[in-house]
Amino acid sequence: MTMADRWLLPDGIDEVLPPLALRMESLRRALLDLYHRWGYDLVVPPPVEFLDSLLTGTGSDLELQTFKLTDQASGRMMGLSADVTPQVARMDAHSLRRPGPSRLCYCANALRATADQYQGGRNPVQLGLELFGHSGIDADLEIVRLALESLYLAGATDVHLAFGHIGIYRVLTEAAGLDAALERDLFEAIERKAYTEIDALLEEAEIDASLRHMLARLPRLHGGLEVITEARESFLDMPEEISAQLEQFEHLARRIGAEHPEVELYFDLAELRGYQYHTGVVFAAYVPGYGQALVKGGRYDDTGRAFGRSRPATGCSMELKLLAGLREQLPPCDGIWAPAGENGELEAIVAKLRAAGERVVQALPGQVTGALDHRCNRRLERIDGEWRCVPLDA
Amino acid sequence: MTMADRWLLPDGIDEVLPPLALRMESLRRALLDLYHRWGYDLVVPPPVEFLDSLLTGTGSDLELQTFKLTDQASGRMMGLSADVTPQVARMDAHSLRRPGPSRLCYCANALRATADQYQGGRNPVQLGLELFGHSGIDADLEIVRLALESLYLAGATDVHLAFGHIGIYRVLTEAAGLDAALERDLFEAIERKAYTEIDALLEEAEIDASLRHMLARLPRLHGGLEVITEARESFLDMPEEISAQLEQFEHLARRIGAEHPEVELYFDLAELRGYQYHTGVVFAAYVPGYGQALVKGGRYDDTGRAFGRSRPATGCSMELKLLAGLREQLPPCDGIWAPAGENGELEAIVAKLRAAGERVVQALPGQVTGALDHRCNRRLERIDGEWRCVPLDA
Repeated sequence: MTMADRWLLPDGIDEVLPPLALRMESLRRALLDLYHRWGYDLVVPPPVEFLDSLLTGTGSDLELQTFKLTDQASGRMMGLSADVTPQVARMDAHSLRRPGPSRLCYCANALRATADQYQGGRNPVQLGLELFGHSGIDADLEIVRLALESLYLAGATDVHLAFGHIGIYRVLTEAAGLDAALERDLFEAIERKAYTEIDALLEEAEIDASLRHMLARLPRLHGGLEVITEARESFLDMPEEISAQLEQFEHLARRIGAEHPEVELYFDLAELRGYQYHTGVVFAAYVPGYGQALVKGGRYDDTGRAFGRSRPATGCSMELKLLAGLREQLPPCDGIWAPAGENGELEAIVAKLRAAGERVVQALPGQVTGALDHRCNRRLERIDGEWRCVPLDA
Repeated sequence: MTMADRWLLPDGIDEVLPPLALRMESLRRALLDLYHRWGYDLVVPPPVEFLDSLLTGTGSDLELQTFKLTDQASGRMMGLSADVTPQVARMDAHSLRRPGPSRLCYCANALRATADQYQGGRNPVQLGLELFGHSGIDADLEIVRLALESLYLAGATDVHLAFGHIGIYRVLTEAAGLDAALERDLFEAIERKAYTEIDALLEEAEIDASLRHMLARLPRLHGGLEVITEARESFLDMPEEISAQLEQFEHLARRIGAEHPEVELYFDLAELRGYQYHTGVVFAAYVPGYGQALVKGGRYDDTGRAFGRSRPATGCSMELKLLAGLREQLPPCDGIWAPAGENGELEAIVAKLRAAGERVVQALPGQVTGALDHRCNRRLERIDGEWRCVPLDA
């Protein structure tokens, strides 16, 4: 995507040059317009905040990723935004305080202290949308629909969608009352799907047999839609909360499956990796040839609590540079090259063409090359006393 | 412009909320489209660079403004971009290396350690254009034209344009061979237009009488176009370089005056304040009611030298948030409110309306308010078995 000489820029930091920057800009506009048509209002979060605000309610992974600065004005610690989502949650909870559901979208630069293995470089252009104030599955459904629409707008064709559910695991471990050390070990073993370790850890723990069975079974439930059905059938004594979550999850999965039969769906009931503050249905969209997810999202209720207002929330985000690289479609060569010189007649025709939306690049005195660099395919020439547009090679 | 509660954000750092963020986005697009039509290619500079690259060839003011970070990957010092222009000069000189003149534009976040008295807050959204590789006055003329077009696009009506010329002062002090301490004192006295101090400092210095006369006269030359004529006539033994610069300057001023008789022009041949790396014609555009310049620019030749390529350069930049506040024009209330619910017929009509470019905000189950928050003026209602768009208050 970028063509910067890396020796001059810090590792993992990149710049975008023409004509690719224009492709990125047009995708940015198409995506923000899409969200606008669905009722998402644009917000512009600040690039830096007090560290307290920035990291409230998020995991410690995000803290490690956050560049810290001392604010010379207040002496307090500030952090550069490493993930825009918690900032938008603060804006919803504190700055906007809308009474009902609120739909917001953004496109902002994030900056990370270390390259994130899930999201690529250290200066992602994070573009995303968030739906606050509604806990129902309809909200999650809308986000997944828009995630798919976004990918199609960017030119993706062969999309794989992997669903997880952080809520089920959380409810089970809470019900089991695991101590902190055991829970951390179990989490880590489940991340690696190390079944013998998982079983050994659960064997040690003094927990209810039925909860033990469910915690052992959960990491094994991955595959097609049938794993949700299997969970619903095999989790006989599950807490009511889980049964409701499974039902909603299945509804969501069936709707997406029906609307998008072309998308390959995958479910993993114990997918925990890389989600920092999520609490319910999570998803990641993949396209062949890309090692990382192109869109990632899910439910993250209650992040706003620290700002005085606990709100249900769901959303997703994507990295614009990565997405813009999906289709290697360059902007068209459709400019007009105009000769240099002060000439009232020429200036008038150039102004008229520009007002009509044409791109007219005027040579500067002494300039002989540049028409191709500027993606021109025509030039203005005076023929028989009149200025005319002729093909560049004529 | 912004409506953030300041107590939660560091002083001078702001966020932008709806609907003003949308107004800012539409101005961003209009400006970048304008530059595109004139042949300016979009670039996206990185938000952070090694300090060496960032501060090369710029003044020490910029160094004080720059937030510093340690790069954990390399151990080297990095800086956050406090002014995008030197970054674009690096991109032209090092990353692009185009043979002839090169026109580039950008819209990027800058971040400043302290609030800049000339440019407002600490997180300006800097939008600008740069023309590299041409030293003639035609290049400066194009930049000034586009600066004015930008202001008109943003809704400015009563524009004042103040021109200066850093080159003339630089050539004079160089010819006079002033020592560093004296030059610093003189610069500072000229900034304050402290005439008795200026005269006393020059009296002390051992310099050629004619140069002394010009240096004493220069800070007194401010007013209408006549001050350039006066300089050309009263600077009898001026170095040839200055005579050429004055001639070009006058040409530029006459052209702008003829094209824009509605703009009030002001000239100050010793305006030195707030220009960090400039070398020739500089300008600042003002609008009544704003204490700071809305567009600022000028010539800054040779900034690219540190990156292996000395290039003439001229350009200008503006602060998008400030500019978006010029016209208090809110986005239209033109959305359509749709009821909640899974209904194939309703979903089909919503999809059709959105595909036609309409903004359709669908209520979520249980949601009763929100139509006005989302700037809707119509709603979808089922009347006589058909979905129809009716005025919101019907």
